[in-house]
Amino acid sequence: MERVPILKLGDILIISIQIDLDDQSVLSLQEDLAERVVATGARGVVIDITAVEIIDSFIGRMLATIAAMCRLLDADTVVVGMRPAVAITLVELGLSLGGVRTALDLEKGVAALGHLRGRDTTR
Amino acid sequence: MERVPILKLGDILIISIQIDLDDQSVLSLQEDLAERVVATGARGVVIDITAVEIIDSFIGRMLATIAAMCRLLDADTVVVGMRPAVAITLVELGLSLGGVRTALDLEKGVAALGHLRGRDTTR
Repeated sequence: MERVPILKLGDILIISIQIDLDDQSVLSLQEDLAERVVATGARGVVIDITAVEIIDSFIGRMLATIAAMCRLLDADTVVVGMRPAVAITLVELGLSLGGVRTALDLEKGVAALGHLRGRDTTR
Repeated sequence: MERVPILKLGDILIISIQIDLDDQSVLSLQEDLAERVVATGARGVVIDITAVEIIDSFIGRMLATIAAMCRLLDADTVVVGMRPAVAITLVELGLSLGGVRTALDLEKGVAALGHLRGRDTTR
């Protein structure tokens, strides 16, 4: 089973989703991420979905779940790299990802996290 | 065909390799990366191989090629997240990745790039 690697930079965790996620890998990712947030004391999580070409309610729910979970662990979540077609599909599906913050790219996502915390989070 | 996403943070590009790379996807990655280095003026490239469980001479050559290519474009390359088993395999195969700089994780890789340039490269 493939696991999505979780990168750490300062107090931010970075996840780049490139594989097709099934139930089991989503569960593993959520568990791994929760453990890493607690172990590292990360204040922010950036999820990059540049490689995601097709999104469905399953992935949408996963993003919302991760954001809610991280919030409980005192970390903010930003989803970055959404393709225009994915945004269109999401809205057409009625999934507006309420509660999930988004930014155009990693750089803007990190800046958004810093803004949320009122400081530079890359340190 | 899947493409490996290239993330940008400050003047560093970050690549996380999670898919099995074949000839075509390696060529695409090299082309995409060279274009991004030039377009963004990036000074450093970090390649994360946390998810790579098996390495062979093909991947080893790719890493060396990318490092050489980036050097010509005035960017340093650091490979991070190598598993212990991968390091053992590489040495057993006689592939010591000469010319490719390595660091334990993304954080140390970014620090190594900053050290190479004599300044903080996350800005």
